[in-house]
Order: sequence, then C-alpha cells, then structure tokens
Amino acid sequence: MNYRIILYTLGWVLNIEAVCMLVPLAGAVVFGEAYIPVYILCAIICLAFGVPLTLKSPKNTGMYAREGLVTVSLSWIVISIFGALPFVITGYIPNFIDALFETVSGFTTTGATVLSDIEALPKSLLLWRSFTHWIGGMGVLVFLVAILPLCGGKNMHLLRAESTGPSVSKLVPKVGSSAKILYGIYTFLTVLQVVLLVAGKMPFFEALTTAFGTAGTGGFAVKNSSIAEYSPYIQNVVSVFMIIFGIDFTVYYLILMRKFKEAFSSEEARVYLAIIAVSTVVVAFNCYGMYSSVGENLTHSLFQVSSVITTTGFTTKDFDKWPQLSTTILTMIMFVGACAGSTGGGMKVSRILILVKSMFKEIRDAIRPNSIHKIKFSGRTVEPEVIKTVNGYAAAYVAVFAVSLLLVSLDNFNFTTNFTAVAATINNVGPGLAGVGPASNFAGYGTLSTLVLIFDMLVGRLEVFPMLVLLSAHTWHK
Amino acid sequence: MNYRIILYTLGWVLNIEAVCMLVPLAGAVVFGEAYIPVYILCAIICLAFGVPLTLKSPKNTGMYAREGLVTVSLSWIVISIFGALPFVITGYIPNFIDALFETVSGFTTTGATVLSDIEALPKSLLLWRSFTHWIGGMGVLVFLVAILPLCGGKNMHLLRAESTGPSVSKLVPKVGSSAKILYGIYTFLTVLQVVLLVAGKMPFFEALTTAFGTAGTGGFAVKNSSIAEYSPYIQNVVSVFMIIFGIDFTVYYLILMRKFKEAFSSEEARVYLAIIAVSTVVVAFNCYGMYSSVGENLTHSLFQVSSVITTTGFTTKDFDKWPQLSTTILTMIMFVGACAGSTGGGMKVSRILILVKSMFKEIRDAIRPNSIHKIKFSGRTVEPEVIKTVNGYAAAYVAVFAVSLLLVSLDNFNFTTNFTAVAATINNVGPGLAGVGPASNFAGYGTLSTLVLIFDMLVGRLEVFPMLVLLSAHTWHK
Repeated sequence: MNYRIILYTLGWVLNIEAVCMLVPLAGAVVFGEAYIPVYILCAIICLAFGVPLTLKSPKNTGMYAREGLVTVSLSWIVISIFGALPFVITGYIPNFIDALFETVSGFTTTGATVLSDIEALPKSLLLWRSFTHWIGGMGVLVFLVAILPLCGGKNMHLLRAESTGPSVSKLVPKVGSSAKILYGIYTFLTVLQVVLLVAGKMPFFEALTTAFGTAGTGGFAVKNSSIAEYSPYIQNVVSVFMIIFGIDFTVYYLILMRKFKEAFSSEEARVYLAIIAVSTVVVAFNCYGMYSSVGENLTHSLFQVSSVITTTGFTTKDFDKWPQLSTTILTMIMFVGACAGSTGGGMKVSRILILVKSMFKEIRDAIRPNSIHKIKFSGRTVEPEVIKTVNGYAAAYVAVFAVSLLLVSLDNFNFTTNFTAVAATINNVGPGLAGVGPASNFAGYGTLSTLVLIFDMLVGRLEVFPMLVLLSAHTWHK
Repeated sequence: MNYRIILYTLGWVLNIEAVCMLVPLAGAVVFGEAYIPVYILCAIICLAFGVPLTLKSPKNTGMYAREGLVTVSLSWIVISIFGALPFVITGYIPNFIDALFETVSGFTTTGATVLSDIEALPKSLLLWRSFTHWIGGMGVLVFLVAILPLCGGKNMHLLRAESTGPSVSKLVPKVGSSAKILYGIYTFLTVLQVVLLVAGKMPFFEALTTAFGTAGTGGFAVKNSSIAEYSPYIQNVVSVFMIIFGIDFTVYYLILMRKFKEAFSSEEARVYLAIIAVSTVVVAFNCYGMYSSVGENLTHSLFQVSSVITTTGFTTKDFDKWPQLSTTILTMIMFVGACAGSTGGGMKVSRILILVKSMFKEIRDAIRPNSIHKIKFSGRTVEPEVIKTVNGYAAAYVAVFAVSLLLVSLDNFNFTTNFTAVAATINNVGPGLAGVGPASNFAGYGTLSTLVLIFDMLVGRLEVFPMLVLLSAHTWHK
C-alpha cells in the first residue's frame, strides 16, 4: 500500500476545504455576523493538517485500485470530520457526532438533519451547510481534479473508485478537462436555477442555498418547512431542476456537442422520466380530493416524486400523511434513485434496469433452456462481467442494509421508522417515514445508530465498495 | 406445448386429492361429525374432473422444461382450488377467495389464516387443514411420483420444476425410489414427533395435527393460542422438530446410509444451526426480564426463532410485543428461511450464503483486480452458472415483493403490516407483525390483496420461476 500518496491526496483535500471555508466566511462578512473568526479558525485548522502533508510531493505516484478505493473513502471521511467544525465551534450542534452526521449528510447530498429548528442557525452556517451539498454532488475528488493537476495522469484509479456523481472518464481524453467541462455544466445549471428562482421573487440567499441543495440533489433547506411556503412557481422550478440534476451529465455534454440523437437515445434517462411520470400520476390519483385544485395536487405530487427519486429530499407536503399507496411508492423510488452519472443517489435506474432484465432473461432461460438469450441496454449487449458486478453491488447493498437495520433497531423505534431511516440514509434521500418523516428529524437516535447512519450515507454515496474495502482485512494485508 | 400431458398430470393430481379426502372423512367418522357427506361430495367432485382426464394416457409423453414448469404451477393451483371446497361447503369459510387463501396457505405450508376463531372449526376440517401442510411439505408432485409410476421416466423435468421441498433427484438413480425413501424418512420423523408429543400428555388429535404442521413447516395450529398453552416440554419438542424439518433431507438419507462424515459436512446445515443459536441468544438477551426464569425465556426465544427461520409460523408468544431488535431479527430470518432440500421456505440458507460470498468476492476483486477469486461452498467451487441463477432468483424475488407491496398498500394498512404481510406469505411463514401479527390474522385484506398474497405464497413455495413462467407471454408463444 502506497501510504504516502494517500496522505498526500488527503492533504490536498484539506487544503481545498480551507479554501471552501471562504464561502461561509464571505457569508459572515456580508451578513455582518460575529462568526468571522470561526471560519478563519476552521480554515487554519484544515491548513495545519493539510499543508504539512502536501509540502513534498511523493516520489512514488503509483496509485492502484486498492489505494484509489482507500483514498476515496478516507477523503470523504476527512472532509466531513473537518467540515463539522463550524457546527461545533459556533455551538449550534455542540455534540461532535451529531455535527458529523449533519456534515456527512451534507457532503453525501443526503439532506437528513439532526436539527429541529433550522431557522435558528446564522446565515453563514446555513450557507456552509448548503455548500457542502454542492461540493458533494459532483464528488469530492472530482472537485480536486478539476482544480489541480493532481498526481499527473495517475488519478484514473482515484476517479474510478469515486464512482459517484457524473462520470469523468467518458467525455474527453484528459481527465482534468472532463472534470472542468462537467463543472462548467454544473455551474451553468446552478446559476440558471438561481436566476429563475430570483425571478419568482425568492430572496437571493434562499435562491442560492436552494440551488446548491437542488444541484447536489441534497435537500438541506433554509426554512423549517423546507420548500412548502414558497409559491407554486418556485416549487415547480425546483421540481424541474431536481429532475434535470438526476439525469446523466453525459446527456448534457452531448447536447452541448450538438449530438442530439445520441443525447436522446439514453434508455436510462427515458425510463427515469417514465417512472417519474407514472409515479406522479398514480400519487396524484391516490391523493385526489386532498387538495383544492388539480394543479395544486399535481404540483405536490410531482415535487415529492421528483425529490425522492432524485434522492434530494426537499418537501412541500408531509408525505408521511399521504395514503399508504403513495408513501409506499415514495419509499420504493428511494431505492431506485436517479440516473448513473448524475448527482443523485440510490441504486440508480440503470442498475435496476439491468437487474430487471436479468430476471426476465432467467425466466426465458427457464422456458427455453437451449436458446441463448442476451440482455440489451441502450441498444448494446450487456457483458456478463457488468451483470456480475451489478449483482455483487446489490448483494452488498442489501447486506449493509440488513446489518444497519439490526443495529439501529437497538434504539427501539418502530419498524417503519428504522426501515425508512436506513433507506433514507443509504439512498442519500434525507427524510423517511414515521419517526424520521418530513415533519421530524434524526436527532432521536442514539450515538451507535447515528454512527451507523453516517456509515450508511457514505456507503450509499460511494456506491458501497469503497467503504467496505476500508473495513476489509484484505485491504490491509501485505 | 404438450397440453395433453399437462392435463393428464393435473387429472392425476385431482384423483390423488380425492383419495386425500379420506383423511378428513375418517376424522368425521371417528369424531361422529355430520360432515361425512361433505368429504364424500368433495372426493366425487375431484374424481369427476380427474377421471376423464386420466382415462387415456397420452401418446406423446414428452415433457420439457416449459411443460414441467407450467404443470407444476397449475398442479398447485388446481389442488388448492379443489382443496378449498370443504371450507366452502361446510360453510366455515363461505367466501371462496378466503377459502382459497386458507388452502393455498395450507399446501404452500405458509400457515397464514383468515380465521379468527380456529377452535370453532369441526375436528375433521382442522384435520384436513393440517393435512394439507403435510402433503405440501414434500411437494405435491413428489407425492404423485412416490405413489404412481407417472409418465415413465419422463418426470425429471417435472420434479426439477417443483424445486421446493426435499430434492428427489439426488439420492438414488430411480426417481420413484428416491421419492419413496424421502417419504419414508418424512413419515418416520412425523410419527416420532407424534409419539413424543403424546408422551408429553398432548391429546392424540392435537399431537397429529401439530406434527403435520411441524413436518411441513406449515404452522396451522388447532388452538387459537397456537402452541402457547402447552407445557414447556411440548414447546421444546416442537422447537426441535421444526429445526429437524428445516434441514436438507439428504443429510438424513446419508445418516441412514451410515455416511456420517458426508452427512455432517453440510456447510448449509452448520450455518443454519449457527444462525438459530446466535439469534436465540440475542433474542433471549433482548427479552431479558420479560419472563420469570431464564429457562422460560430460552424456551420462548428458541421457539419463535426456530418457528420463523424454518418458516413454520407456530407461536408461543406474541413476538410483535417484543423489543424492536428481536422483532427485526425475526423479520430478517423470515427471508433467510431454512435449508434447501428441507420442507421449509424462504430464500434458503444456501442462497443467502452464495449471495454473501459473491459480495465478498466482489470486494476482493475490487481490492486486487488482477487476482482470480473463487467462491467455495461445502468445499467445492461454485460454478458461475449457479451464481447467475441465484442472482436471477433474488432479482425476481425482490421484484415480486415490490409489486406485491404496492398492490397490497391499496388497502391502506400501515407499512409494517403490509411489508410483513408480503414477507410472511412470500416466505411461507404465516404470521407477520402489526395488523398481521401473531395475535391477528389476514382477514382484514380486501379481495385484490388476498389474491396477491395467494400468488405470493405460491411464488415463495415454488421458488419464484414456475409462477412467473405461467404469466410470461414467452411460455404461450408457438
């Protein structure tokens, strides 16, 4: 194991985090808050650890699969640990484990909170909280690669290990250029959303934080009622942008390159949009009569469906009070998640599609054992290796889910609360049902459960394997 | 599709069912009940359909994979439809769909009931109800093969399709002989349990029906309180026999052949026993203080754990009132189920083991992509084909689960009720939690949900594929 390169990369993560602290610092200056020294202190602490680690670049820049996976998991853990400092130092979340939960929830774009009164927080802290979504949405290391020519050409294993967020490897030959193009699209869409929200008379600060939460499919809001008290126009803008950020960014790159035919041939995107359409209509029918107009009903149905499938977690209504069919649909699309290569979480539409197709293949194999049946995806045959990996992922996912559910049940909340708490964290959604429903929060869980749910958020965001690799004895064998 | 051979086999299923009606008929005679004509009528109805279909044996005895799968699903459906007649004709379950639920629950050895007052039923009907467990435990078509030299040597596809229950293909070259040996073991163990129960002062009728319910891992009891009001001795005997019937019958055959080393080398059986031991200890600790003595605590913990993992469903305590950790453990081992080749249901310990091992393989592959890692099971390398089939099974299982959960949620019961209702039926357990907990029953669900749960019981018992094949358009294509 090349420990030197791992520590070097972690050092850069901390240096960059120090720079990121300028965002809440700027907020504190603009809003004339007393917390200016807090963010300066946090930046200094980051640099105090980061600078010594990055003073000398390592001679051996070899980074293989194992180093890549370990670096990715540790980067996310480290950035979250130091990112929790503002919450602890300002005293708004004095318990470090709770602050870590909030920060991991931010970077992993989960949006689950331990806070019951969000509006009590100073604006600079709300800005930091929402900004973590924006950074996490694209991936912590993609951020690094977009800014720094890190480790020369050796960062492929790193970005392959950080398999969350838009896929950097596909677009153009140079990884750094790909990362820059993706950040360009990401920034453009975020700015566009801010403009449209401000046009709907949303105050700039709220528009900015809401756009951060939407772009990263995170879901931290700055109001206790999430997006409920805004106008239908604003709610619909947020719905549309949640859906946009849930689509594979390659599609936008192809549109940018004027390759429209390729862009619109994505089977995953079409199925994703179809699931949203069908779910919205069914939920709207199921909630018929609960709202004064069909328009209002559709706005709320579309909002909640888009928010949950993209694993954002904003809400306009307490869907825990909706009829059981609707809450069950929402619980299920938590697991489906958004498209691979988007900023969204969950198992991803493409994986679900491959699992469903492999099921149909097995049925066909059973009926006609002597014929050869293939699985096609977006017009191409899926290699057995891919199916095997998806199945391994699904098994690991279920295993982590089961163990988490057991550990969390020690706190003796009811089954629905525990089940959806694990579902909402491992899928990076945010709110679940019952005790962790939209009207509630995660503060009720004890320390062990909080740590388990922190682990689940990281597992979900990093697509299971990096976190398990960190725990595997095989990783640390010579 | 060779329809002639399918109908011919279904005819024999009905003829055999007519003979089975002699059991409740004998009960009615012994207990001097007025229902003697009912069972004679039911037998005549079975024969009225069965005899014409079996008068002429088909010229073309070709039965391939497709015919095998279709025959199996239809056999279980047909035997259940006609098996429901006694409940309807006696008037104890006048609604046919409810009676079908009860009968499918019997044959699939689920043990879920729509009855709130079981003790109101005449003894002959209770005997029929429990006897369906005993027949279903070994598999409907294995029963046929054990009795009849059906279709000559062409029944391999049939028995491979009926992949539930003890595996007939393994023991000796001739299928019919294998089936007879297995039935010998099954009958011997059932009789042994009856003797031990009667020795514990259980009345013979109750001992017989309880043994039927245990042997088939069914769970229909003849008391409203299930096994709660019997002595600890009887409860422990039932626990031990539930565990025994949850082990691969090949193990008993090997013991019978004095191949002790082979018998005790089963990795699946060892893991199965380990799960029972660990779960019992954890549940006992979790329920510490709820009972007057450690012995009582252990008796109830062992009983509920054994009952649920073997998917029997007898109860001595309302485990829905236990602490959340215990109910979560019980909910999870519902999915694990018993050993493959036993009379138990669920996903089976061997499949779970293969899924877990494939997960660890994926982690090792991620850490060291250039090494070759293999999955071993009971000392032998697992072929990729087997892993693929297990994954296909798991995907289909989850898909059926998800669709069922959606449909059942239309009745607007809470999430825990719906989730465990589907879990308890698809895994052939019987009781779930909350609205379908041990103190409750399935009568609350509407017709659509009842039909969905009937489907799930069959899906679970036939290991998913035969029922899906029945629904697949590919099956009916020329």
